[in-house]
Amino acid sequence: MDSMTFVLFGATGDLAKRKIYPALFNLYLNQKLPKSFSVIGVGREQLSDVELRSRVTDSLYTFSRHLINDKSKKEEFIKKFQYCQLDVTNTEGYKKLLEHVQQNEKDHNIAENRMFYLSVAPEFFEVIALNIKKSGLGSTDGWKRLIIEKPFGHDLKSAQELNEKLSKSFEEEEIYRIDHYLGKPMVQNLEALTFANPVLQSLWNNRFIANVQITASEIVGVEERAGYYDKAGAIRDMVQNHMLQLVMMTSMHLPKQISESGIRNEKRKVMKSLRTLNRDTVGVHVVRGQYGPGEINEKFVPSYREEPGVEASSQTDTFIAARLWIDNSFWDGVPFYIRTGKRMMEKETKIVIEFKNPLKDSYTSEMEKVKPNLLTININPNEGVSLQLNSKNPTNGEMEPIKVDFAASKQDVPEAYELLLFDALYGDSTFFAHWDEVELSWRWVEPILEAFKENRVPLHSYSAGSMGPDAAHQLLEEDGFKWW
Amino acid sequence: MDSMTFVLFGATGDLAKRKIYPALFNLYLNQKLPKSFSVIGVGREQLSDVELRSRVTDSLYTFSRHLINDKSKKEEFIKKFQYCQLDVTNTEGYKKLLEHVQQNEKDHNIAENRMFYLSVAPEFFEVIALNIKKSGLGSTDGWKRLIIEKPFGHDLKSAQELNEKLSKSFEEEEIYRIDHYLGKPMVQNLEALTFANPVLQSLWNNRFIANVQITASEIVGVEERAGYYDKAGAIRDMVQNHMLQLVMMTSMHLPKQISESGIRNEKRKVMKSLRTLNRDTVGVHVVRGQYGPGEINEKFVPSYREEPGVEASSQTDTFIAARLWIDNSFWDGVPFYIRTGKRMMEKETKIVIEFKNPLKDSYTSEMEKVKPNLLTININPNEGVSLQLNSKNPTNGEMEPIKVDFAASKQDVPEAYELLLFDALYGDSTFFAHWDEVELSWRWVEPILEAFKENRVPLHSYSAGSMGPDAAHQLLEEDGFKWW
Repeated sequence: MDSMTFVLFGATGDLAKRKIYPALFNLYLNQKLPKSFSVIGVGREQLSDVELRSRVTDSLYTFSRHLINDKSKKEEFIKKFQYCQLDVTNTEGYKKLLEHVQQNEKDHNIAENRMFYLSVAPEFFEVIALNIKKSGLGSTDGWKRLIIEKPFGHDLKSAQELNEKLSKSFEEEEIYRIDHYLGKPMVQNLEALTFANPVLQSLWNNRFIANVQITASEIVGVEERAGYYDKAGAIRDMVQNHMLQLVMMTSMHLPKQISESGIRNEKRKVMKSLRTLNRDTVGVHVVRGQYGPGEINEKFVPSYREEPGVEASSQTDTFIAARLWIDNSFWDGVPFYIRTGKRMMEKETKIVIEFKNPLKDSYTSEMEKVKPNLLTININPNEGVSLQLNSKNPTNGEMEPIKVDFAASKQDVPEAYELLLFDALYGDSTFFAHWDEVELSWRWVEPILEAFKENRVPLHSYSAGSMGPDAAHQLLEEDGFKWW
Repeated sequence: MDSMTFVLFGATGDLAKRKIYPALFNLYLNQKLPKSFSVIGVGREQLSDVELRSRVTDSLYTFSRHLINDKSKKEEFIKKFQYCQLDVTNTEGYKKLLEHVQQNEKDHNIAENRMFYLSVAPEFFEVIALNIKKSGLGSTDGWKRLIIEKPFGHDLKSAQELNEKLSKSFEEEEIYRIDHYLGKPMVQNLEALTFANPVLQSLWNNRFIANVQITASEIVGVEERAGYYDKAGAIRDMVQNHMLQLVMMTSMHLPKQISESGIRNEKRKVMKSLRTLNRDTVGVHVVRGQYGPGEINEKFVPSYREEPGVEASSQTDTFIAARLWIDNSFWDGVPFYIRTGKRMMEKETKIVIEFKNPLKDSYTSEMEKVKPNLLTININPNEGVSLQLNSKNPTNGEMEPIKVDFAASKQDVPEAYELLLFDALYGDSTFFAHWDEVELSWRWVEPILEAFKENRVPLHSYSAGSMGPDAAHQLLEEDGFKWW
């Protein structure tokens, strides 16, 4: 791994504190940082290096998954941090940052490898990227990379504009778009699961699979994010990025070569095969919901419209369920169902593969108590794989479902940010969202956004603490299925 | 379930005490006995009904898997027992037994349904069956059934003779040959596992399966059975019956109708497709072993030849491994390996299905750390199903095998004898060894018996406490496999 300077925009922000500092520290403890690695934290506040280091220390004590047993290690780690005050809209200020970076490269005698992490509000993406170019920060004799967080645009047009502007300063292969769902160990494992297991590989197509169900449910409501969320809704906050990425990861084929470009290519193929929706079909395949009041963990919770910062007439979706079709020969006839929402019964991200039962018709009477075989990939909060089989109960001789399952050890499992940061430092973009995927996702979502805007799809209310509106259950019942 | 009289020959014997009485008691507790059910215990000793009942009581306290919490239930149960002294070779004596049975039928006003259980040494099978006929015990206006225990013959010829003699008194469908391996819950589950699980069903053929391994290993040595065992060896004691039954249960196809005759038919088909051995091939596919001295659980144990009752020059096999081929389109090219032995490292009966990895050649470098997918069916002493998959270790990103498994609850699992007795009482012969199977098994084993007799196959020594002789490992290595 190349030595580098890591320039962190938003060094005093919430994401840095909660995720980035702990992730870097854990990589450091696991000896997964390059030999020479310096972080230049950038922020609007006036801070000294010592003050930044003290904040980093606080963050580690609060959020690191590894306890800090060895203080000397922590001391050594925080020495890597320096601070540079900057108003990111002020082009002139970048000169100071450049000097800072160059000084660091000189001090450590390292190549001009520069990682720019934009942990800032999306409205600053363009101006920072532009100023990196203008200031000369982006002209290096080593490499440069850009890490950015969602949201990547608000719709197809804004995403395209943003991408165009970024691409003036960074090449596509220099841009690492974080979709933290792609950093979850079980999502990273999806490819390996099918690739390395002939048993699953053989079954991974429409001959054996009846349907695929992807659920990402949350218990929390909108919290303090109403300002952003009420303009985004579940469709932008979850579906366009995370849910579609999970669809891609589940349904893509094994590339001929296991490589970044191979996998990226296969994911693009999925998006290109995804049946597009139009004015008439959005309402058939997409269910929009918004939570009403309800009860969660025996506590009353208010409706979405009563949340602070949300208008009493808000039409924003806090729940989406949808039926997707992948029009290729492998998935022809296999519906992919997705659902995601806030204020649901449980916090859970999982993929359920329901298998067909070709014997059902030949052995009707014996099959009465036989449940479908299910392969469940638990992503969050539990990680693991389970397979539901049918077995005979030796006591009464009746068929009953059994679950064979593997729960990943809770010990020492790295967090999404650790895995993703490591990959970015290493220069492996496999588990990042590439522009093709982002663009094609927005393109697929666009007719839904329009339908919602024009109110052509009913907004179903669902009780907080439920698993979404009835319409989401009817969506599957129409096809003879149910959510697992 | 019809009311009946249950005539137990060998009522004072070891099997009755250890297995039959507890099994009947547990069926009784679970309300799985017919409304009117009487046991007439037959033995050579002079015993009163009270004395027999007292022995039954002792047996229940020692061997029943259910504790006797309710003494009134136990009292009610043992009241079903009567005793009839009889020298089974004395034809005259059977008249008294007939009277006893008829009196019981009259007392309880039940039909002449008579179950005869021969829990006696095999040399008495013929004479008892004959006398049942001669005495009129077998002439009923209800039904009659015969339950017998192994060994069923000593070789093909003696088995055929025995069967011919039995068949003078009982029709084939009246004979229930106990193979207690067929009573084990997971063996009874094998059919259900493939039948009710499309996921497994789809994979159950030579396209996906590389090989099948069936192991039945014991820790114990010959114990007090040297008199019988030294003449039988592992080949007669385990292979001809239990191991071949497991091969049949694993490899048979789903019959068009799930029924006794359907399954029996499919098992016969397996035996008919089993490639026969001849003079030249026995040594290629069969490994014979005998245990030498060794260490088990940190204790020294003597060699087989040093066991009490065994001659110092004994050539008897205490271990067999073999490679079997089923020559039909489903199993063409898939070796079935079996191994069984005494004084081995662990007590374990299990079936391991090893799957092919068709991607191995296309992705050589990535596959280095990938282990084969294995489906393991644990039969004894643990019961359960487990599937070995490959998964990515999130900490170091490397492939490693994971096991998804289901362990059957240890609670309330009926014993083999309970399940088998219930089926026999009910009149369901699915899980009994039918004559075709017995005959075809002897026929398959015959060339091995001859080769052993003529000493044409080496007798490998193996250390007590090991997993058998090296030759058993080489058997699989020749095909590029290893025992799991």
